[in-house]
Amino acid sequence: MEAPRLDFLFYPRSVAVIGASNVPGKVGNAIMRSITLNFSGKVYAVNVKGGEIEVNGRKFPVYRSIKDVPDEVDVAVIAVPAKFVPDVIDECGEKGVKGAVVISAGFKEAGRAELEEELVKRARKWGIRVVGPNCLGVTNLENGFDCNFNPPERQARPPFGKVAFMSQSGAFGAAILDWAASHKIGMSKFISLGNMADLDESDFIAYLGEDEKTGVITGYIEGVKDGRKFFNVAKEVTLKKPIIILKAGRTEAGAKAAASHTGSLAGSYKIYEAAFEQTGVLSAKSMRQLFNYAKALAMQKPAKGNRVAIVTNGGGAGVMMSDGLLERGMKLAELSEETNERFRKDIEEGKLPHHMSYRNPIDVIGDAPSSRYEIAMRYALEDPNVDVLVVIALFQSPALDEGIVEAMERMQAYGKPIVFVAPGGAYPHKMARNIELKGVPVYETVEDGVDAVYALVKYGEWLRENGKL
Amino acid sequence: MEAPRLDFLFYPRSVAVIGASNVPGKVGNAIMRSITLNFSGKVYAVNVKGGEIEVNGRKFPVYRSIKDVPDEVDVAVIAVPAKFVPDVIDECGEKGVKGAVVISAGFKEAGRAELEEELVKRARKWGIRVVGPNCLGVTNLENGFDCNFNPPERQARPPFGKVAFMSQSGAFGAAILDWAASHKIGMSKFISLGNMADLDESDFIAYLGEDEKTGVITGYIEGVKDGRKFFNVAKEVTLKKPIIILKAGRTEAGAKAAASHTGSLAGSYKIYEAAFEQTGVLSAKSMRQLFNYAKALAMQKPAKGNRVAIVTNGGGAGVMMSDGLLERGMKLAELSEETNERFRKDIEEGKLPHHMSYRNPIDVIGDAPSSRYEIAMRYALEDPNVDVLVVIALFQSPALDEGIVEAMERMQAYGKPIVFVAPGGAYPHKMARNIELKGVPVYETVEDGVDAVYALVKYGEWLRENGKL
Repeated sequence: MEAPRLDFLFYPRSVAVIGASNVPGKVGNAIMRSITLNFSGKVYAVNVKGGEIEVNGRKFPVYRSIKDVPDEVDVAVIAVPAKFVPDVIDECGEKGVKGAVVISAGFKEAGRAELEEELVKRARKWGIRVVGPNCLGVTNLENGFDCNFNPPERQARPPFGKVAFMSQSGAFGAAILDWAASHKIGMSKFISLGNMADLDESDFIAYLGEDEKTGVITGYIEGVKDGRKFFNVAKEVTLKKPIIILKAGRTEAGAKAAASHTGSLAGSYKIYEAAFEQTGVLSAKSMRQLFNYAKALAMQKPAKGNRVAIVTNGGGAGVMMSDGLLERGMKLAELSEETNERFRKDIEEGKLPHHMSYRNPIDVIGDAPSSRYEIAMRYALEDPNVDVLVVIALFQSPALDEGIVEAMERMQAYGKPIVFVAPGGAYPHKMARNIELKGVPVYETVEDGVDAVYALVKYGEWLRENGKL
Repeated sequence: MEAPRLDFLFYPRSVAVIGASNVPGKVGNAIMRSITLNFSGKVYAVNVKGGEIEVNGRKFPVYRSIKDVPDEVDVAVIAVPAKFVPDVIDECGEKGVKGAVVISAGFKEAGRAELEEELVKRARKWGIRVVGPNCLGVTNLENGFDCNFNPPERQARPPFGKVAFMSQSGAFGAAILDWAASHKIGMSKFISLGNMADLDESDFIAYLGEDEKTGVITGYIEGVKDGRKFFNVAKEVTLKKPIIILKAGRTEAGAKAAASHTGSLAGSYKIYEAAFEQTGVLSAKSMRQLFNYAKALAMQKPAKGNRVAIVTNGGGAGVMMSDGLLERGMKLAELSEETNERFRKDIEEGKLPHHMSYRNPIDVIGDAPSSRYEIAMRYALEDPNVDVLVVIALFQSPALDEGIVEAMERMQAYGKPIVFVAPGGAYPHKMARNIELKGVPVYETVEDGVDAVYALVKYGEWLRENGKL
């Protein structure tokens, strides 16, 4: 399938908000507030009532119809009562609008399927592509184009980055954005899919597959709209960049709940699992897992194999990491005789402590400074039996100095994927931020780190199977 | 087994730090710093070098031997080189010390089993009970008695609360404390078990079973020291309060790593699983799960059945919660015809919105204020088919007001366990703190909330099977 050209939806030169309002608390006011906060394109307010709107310290005249706007309009963001939407679409068509983001609810999800069909019919007539209805619209974190009516004091926006996220649930999507923001996960574009009357998850996957600002595509999905289309698009896109899907409605009760939520036929989860497997889509079981996968793949290269070396200053964390990796199908790398010899020699010469264990997990012991970590990390990364390196740092030990940050930057020269785990509270968090600025993803718990390794190994396998790695 | 009387270890009237030092960075200095920070008992510094120590703005004369301390001493915290420890124990014996917390490493874990045996022999001779060696000692969050040498700027201490935690790994235990502190999880007592030359995990489980300040007992364990003893103690204690164990060394690689870490024979995990099942111990797979379980059980009553009602303002989160509960063996409660009728009537009368779904999950929709939540929660809690209530609040919607906090306080009058899920960032976090102050545990993700329900249901089952609920 050829990717639909949807750049106009994310990079409009000019936007009209239809149903714009001056009344705080109203959706049409909240959208004006969101769009005018960081977006530098032109924004026009439209409302049959006319008048003037003041948001974010700027004043906007209100046009009674989009047709009165004295400029071309690329995208119309529509927040008028559902029954008026088809006529508004006609006006948009006359105006030459390319895309309509329909925020309004009250269509298929409220039992009014015929109104939704009418919407689509009118849009098709004019060649307008539609997002929604019944959605939070799109947010482009790159240029600040943001249709989301949730106010920033309730729902933060993540920083600009490489992860694109789409959601069939608006409310849950908003919660995820808020969560991602507080975890400093960089996002490229967010799409609230809504009822998918026109554009669906496969269209956006195809578009994001071509989008050079997106490195990883993620999505919350209850049911795909067109199985065949999804299969074909996913299979192609995963050869270029990873797709991670959180599929809800896996159980009978979940599927029932999904049916009454989005009307999705959740279908047998087994069929989805098989489709994900065959198309190289990574399937996440939870929100946290989704972003554990995404962060790893956004920051590190996929792994060329499943043999993992662990360097840790705490034995217990090494044991837990070993369990986690084995339980998810990875292997502990068997270090080469040459590597063992390097450790032995350093211990003999007093460069490394006598009772450290250099069998994998490599335990540099609780009093390890960063220089000792660096020796162990180099030996592991230089070992041909090692595909991925996991570094566990228990920063509670005052022996571990901040030199570890620069060391992590140096370690990336080896070209092997690295995952960093730093459990704890405020101090490890601070160090985590600094290490991530150097390009290495850091996780708060051992189990999150296991997710990260899994994603790098699993996606690497897919690429290798298809001759792409 | 009769519980050992170990109050003197956690509530000493007077303590001697043997190996106390005035040199910042030394273990004997860090311990003096930790113990004198919040503890109001008497603290004496001991070091063969004599002199004076100044920590936390207080001055301490240094006695050359514990025998010179002009007072009775309940507990000696020992941080001298390993080879001197047996003789120090003798001096403690002569002084009449009841407990020795041996921080020093260099015993069995370093290949010196005979030195450890000598330590135990001397302690037995004098009737001294020993914690460690090779550990972080004990921390009593109630009175500030804290032997942990990790400085507070690196490792925060959790607030005082109901969860006791013991760890066979000192470093990982410290990371968990730090993590628990940043998640405001209240702890009663922390025990770093070390080599368990004398007191082991079963002794402390038995003690904590009698400790009225402890509501939930948790532990990180690689292998139990005495299987029979553990079995008997656990079986008895779980009838009084929950025990949650994170067992590491579950896989072959993990067991190998455990053997080289604590020398534990991790044993077949299947045997552990069976033992946990037969003794009512909840087995956690990860640090986060351990505390998801612990927080729920510390704050709520165990459930009388596995039928769960969900009230949510987001359909997607309801679908995910349904999946999570079903996948872990819980059921969605089938609401009674009476309850359905109450919802129908309210919808007809316009008290509840027309297109809300009142089949479980009960979807109060994105524009729900707290008053609408309250109606739905009451109907669910009053339904005899409901054993547990899960409330999901997507606070990103500005419609949801802060009245939900007080509402949660009122809901507890029904006597059924409640779990609250509030995914997102800063604002939901703030609300979570307020709701937890009212006694309802709040979780950041759906999957964490599933853990919480699982713990309440599973522990409830154990109590019912044994006629205790």
